[in-house]
Amino acid sequence: MTNDLQPAPLSTWRGAVLHEWVDYNGHLRDAFYLLIFSLASDALMEHIGLDEAGRQATGHSLFTLECHLNFLHEVKLDAKVEVRTQVLGHDSKRLQIYHSLHLADTPGVLAASEQMLVNVEVAGPVSAPFATGVLARLQALAARHQALAMPRFVGRTMTLPA
Amino acid sequence: MTNDLQPAPLSTWRGAVLHEWVDYNGHLRDAFYLLIFSLASDALMEHIGLDEAGRQATGHSLFTLECHLNFLHEVKLDAKVEVRTQVLGHDSKRLQIYHSLHLADTPGVLAASEQMLVNVEVAGPVSAPFATGVLARLQALAARHQALAMPRFVGRTMTLPA
Repeated sequence: MTNDLQPAPLSTWRGAVLHEWVDYNGHLRDAFYLLIFSLASDALMEHIGLDEAGRQATGHSLFTLECHLNFLHEVKLDAKVEVRTQVLGHDSKRLQIYHSLHLADTPGVLAASEQMLVNVEVAGPVSAPFATGVLARLQALAARHQALAMPRFVGRTMTLPA
Repeated sequence: MTNDLQPAPLSTWRGAVLHEWVDYNGHLRDAFYLLIFSLASDALMEHIGLDEAGRQATGHSLFTLECHLNFLHEVKLDAKVEVRTQVLGHDSKRLQIYHSLHLADTPGVLAASEQMLVNVEVAGPVSAPFATGVLARLQALAARHQALAMPRFVGRTMTLPA
């Protein structure tokens, strides 16, 4: 059995932390963690057939409804990072995912984001069921990811200690 | 009694949606909602004495630990928007806040974000109690905001319908 058959999160983005993403301390600013995750979501869209050609053919796109972010470690200018993405669930028009940010080829988690996305008919805009081909790709990916452990930063609420 | 004595969220940021913040559809991209909220957090820091001079005097800054975002409406290029910020709670070194995004001078909510921030001694970096003057300003603000209603998008978890 080759390693390709082992279920694993999808590697969705690799790149370096840019100068325009860091604050006065040279650390990645909170919003730019989300920009990196947003670029990873673009790659996930491509993976399920919602690249530019797919968006034009279907008239659909994915919009983010809700997003939770946990910032675990500082990330410095020029750091080489990667995002790994796991499908947590979906229904006929919504998709729940988990992104984790890592130094490239390194296990430790720098930040995590649980997100709920919705398929949208852009002309409305109005939510709409996934197109048939997109749903098939999504189901295949979700089936592979079902074997993965539930990640740590899922389903969290925020509370101060009493 | 003047209107200044009525408790209200703090108006923390006003500006227009810039070209570099929108996607191919001319809509504000998810990460740039958070950048606007992040700029509003900067204004909150100034309000409690953690502007650049305060950061230098104390050696402290605020880091975001966790952030929840709800995207409720599309926001278009050039839209004039504002952020209103409410203190939900704090302890000796952490601060829980709520930002809401609106068209300027308009009640409807475009997006909301609950956030947990931590006071950090930057030289460590290590979490540290708020400096005395900062804590006093924060307590005054929190006391005023205690009279406000709990906002809608607080304490949420994400779930697909069964």
